[in-house]
Amino acid sequence: MSGEPLKRKMPSSLLLSEIREQPDVLRRLMEREMGRVQRIAALIRARDARYVLIAARGTSDNAARYAQYLFGARNGLTVALAAPALYTRYHAPPRMDGALVIGISQSGASPDIAAVIEEGRRQGCLTLTITNAPASPLAAAADEVILLHAGEEQSIAATKTYTAQLMALAMLSAALADGERELLAEVPAQIEEALQAAAAPVVEAAERLKAADRCVVIGRGYNYATAFEIALKLAELTRIVAEPFSSADFLHGPIALIERGFPAIVVNPSGRVYDEVSEVEQEMIARGASPVVLSDRADAAGREPTIALPGGVPEWLSPLVSVAPGQLLAYHLSVARGFDPDQPRGLQKVTRTM
Amino acid sequence: MSGEPLKRKMPSSLLLSEIREQPDVLRRLMEREMGRVQRIAALIRARDARYVLIAARGTSDNAARYAQYLFGARNGLTVALAAPALYTRYHAPPRMDGALVIGISQSGASPDIAAVIEEGRRQGCLTLTITNAPASPLAAAADEVILLHAGEEQSIAATKTYTAQLMALAMLSAALADGERELLAEVPAQIEEALQAAAAPVVEAAERLKAADRCVVIGRGYNYATAFEIALKLAELTRIVAEPFSSADFLHGPIALIERGFPAIVVNPSGRVYDEVSEVEQEMIARGASPVVLSDRADAAGREPTIALPGGVPEWLSPLVSVAPGQLLAYHLSVARGFDPDQPRGLQKVTRTM
Repeated sequence: MSGEPLKRKMPSSLLLSEIREQPDVLRRLMEREMGRVQRIAALIRARDARYVLIAARGTSDNAARYAQYLFGARNGLTVALAAPALYTRYHAPPRMDGALVIGISQSGASPDIAAVIEEGRRQGCLTLTITNAPASPLAAAADEVILLHAGEEQSIAATKTYTAQLMALAMLSAALADGERELLAEVPAQIEEALQAAAAPVVEAAERLKAADRCVVIGRGYNYATAFEIALKLAELTRIVAEPFSSADFLHGPIALIERGFPAIVVNPSGRVYDEVSEVEQEMIARGASPVVLSDRADAAGREPTIALPGGVPEWLSPLVSVAPGQLLAYHLSVARGFDPDQPRGLQKVTRTM
Repeated sequence: MSGEPLKRKMPSSLLLSEIREQPDVLRRLMEREMGRVQRIAALIRARDARYVLIAARGTSDNAARYAQYLFGARNGLTVALAAPALYTRYHAPPRMDGALVIGISQSGASPDIAAVIEEGRRQGCLTLTITNAPASPLAAAADEVILLHAGEEQSIAATKTYTAQLMALAMLSAALADGERELLAEVPAQIEEALQAAAAPVVEAAERLKAADRCVVIGRGYNYATAFEIALKLAELTRIVAEPFSSADFLHGPIALIERGFPAIVVNPSGRVYDEVSEVEQEMIARGASPVVLSDRADAAGREPTIALPGGVPEWLSPLVSVAPGQLLAYHLSVARGFDPDQPRGLQKVTRTM
């Protein structure tokens, strides 16, 4: 305590606190919204929606990508991702009858997402907003609202509102399917476990990736969304151009990019697409690359994953868990590259796209 | 003619011939398939499809992205892009009733695309295949087929089959809308004009980009697909990690990446989203970058585009024209970086994803 206080080398980071807050956020969300979600599920069943149309941007769009697999595989619903420009730029909203229309937005302030919801209402669809902002225009526009209760998200890069959006979707899916709701309650502890296990390996992985200015992130199925979201965090926080790929598309073409030292992240928890995503990993290694692998199991050659995910997470809930170490990795990479993870250059928190 | 013949410095490239063949391919396609497309449009109207579900991968997926804006803005149809893994990996095909189901594949040989078409038929949907391969499994699986008549595509990177897919979709859209069919006939000459005008500037742009190992490609609305397709050609042919962005998403977050010298391509023909995409260009320039701009007009500050597109192309057809100089740029970049554009390392022509 003598003299000038030390300049903090590692400032207490809002982003880091928000990453760590996620288990509590999800517990609160389940506690406060499960009843309402049950009621909304009953409404959806009564309306016999033929398909789901989701409008979202950025991080929320990645939550929509998760919904594509979740509602598809578990609820038998085809999910279309809306092209908001049709509503706001081309003034030619397409036919939406028979659709359940969902708008996802942390801030609830995006005019183009609201335009899709409003048109859905005009066309007589059931409309639902998933947002962290109860008093937002998007919440006001929809018939029904699921609130995230994530508390204010102060850092520019969304983390806790992303996993909360995934949880809201998973709650809705479970309510529609009338099953396995009890598995949801285990997710917060699984995220805690994932963050704890990742603490040291992400620092190492950040060292390995810190000189990169490009990177590919691979996932498939449920975790296609995770690949997109990790790539987005890298772009926002580290200025690395990170391109997400489905393993299927990647093997077909862009695998050509891979050579010794090529930076790559592979998201591969246990599940139906494990073997296929593992094949990409093998192929990368055969070409001399050393991908950062997130998984809960060793591969066929006995190699342990770079970042160990907790075991026993059902595949449909794995995106809520596997993204967490990716967020942590993006945080450490941001610091390792000398940036401020709380205030990435040039980013605005709220999208106001028309 | 004395002594040893010179080793050709610029080998005659299959890719280059196929890029140049595009106007003829499109003329042939219109001539041979317009009648059939009219008949298919009548069937679609009779079935009163509520929405369109498209299954496609890679380049064909970018054609599907074009269809999202085309069918949305001009035919009032919401377009969903299928997640093939739901059909082949999760064995949980979602409900498709009310959908027109379209499979797009150059080779017609992708088992996962065929699985979506087969399930669509099983569920009683009208199904349509758009392919270059009349005897393919995908052609056999669907109720209706539009053939591309592009001739064999010998180079690994798809070019003429991409624009032929766009044309097939544009023909179908025009037939459904019962209007402006005559504009289609002007596209081949517009592509010729675009290729001619681009001949010198793409060589210069390739010089400017050749040291890059990452790049962003910006587009919105109809030309969101073009941004994706140019990025894919760059990844396939030049090993540059090229990430496509909608101007809306880019302004909100990844603009943070941009600094002096950052390699960027902006696709911005005249149309409803011109001003917004132009704003990204201005913002990039303000941050010290010098994007390669494809446009048919000078910007608000009077700057001429790097690569001039022909004027007078209606926005809904502009993706057929604006992609051509992008293909040429990818070709020249490939050569400038010392690769063989006809045989990019590690690529297979036919996707056999399950």
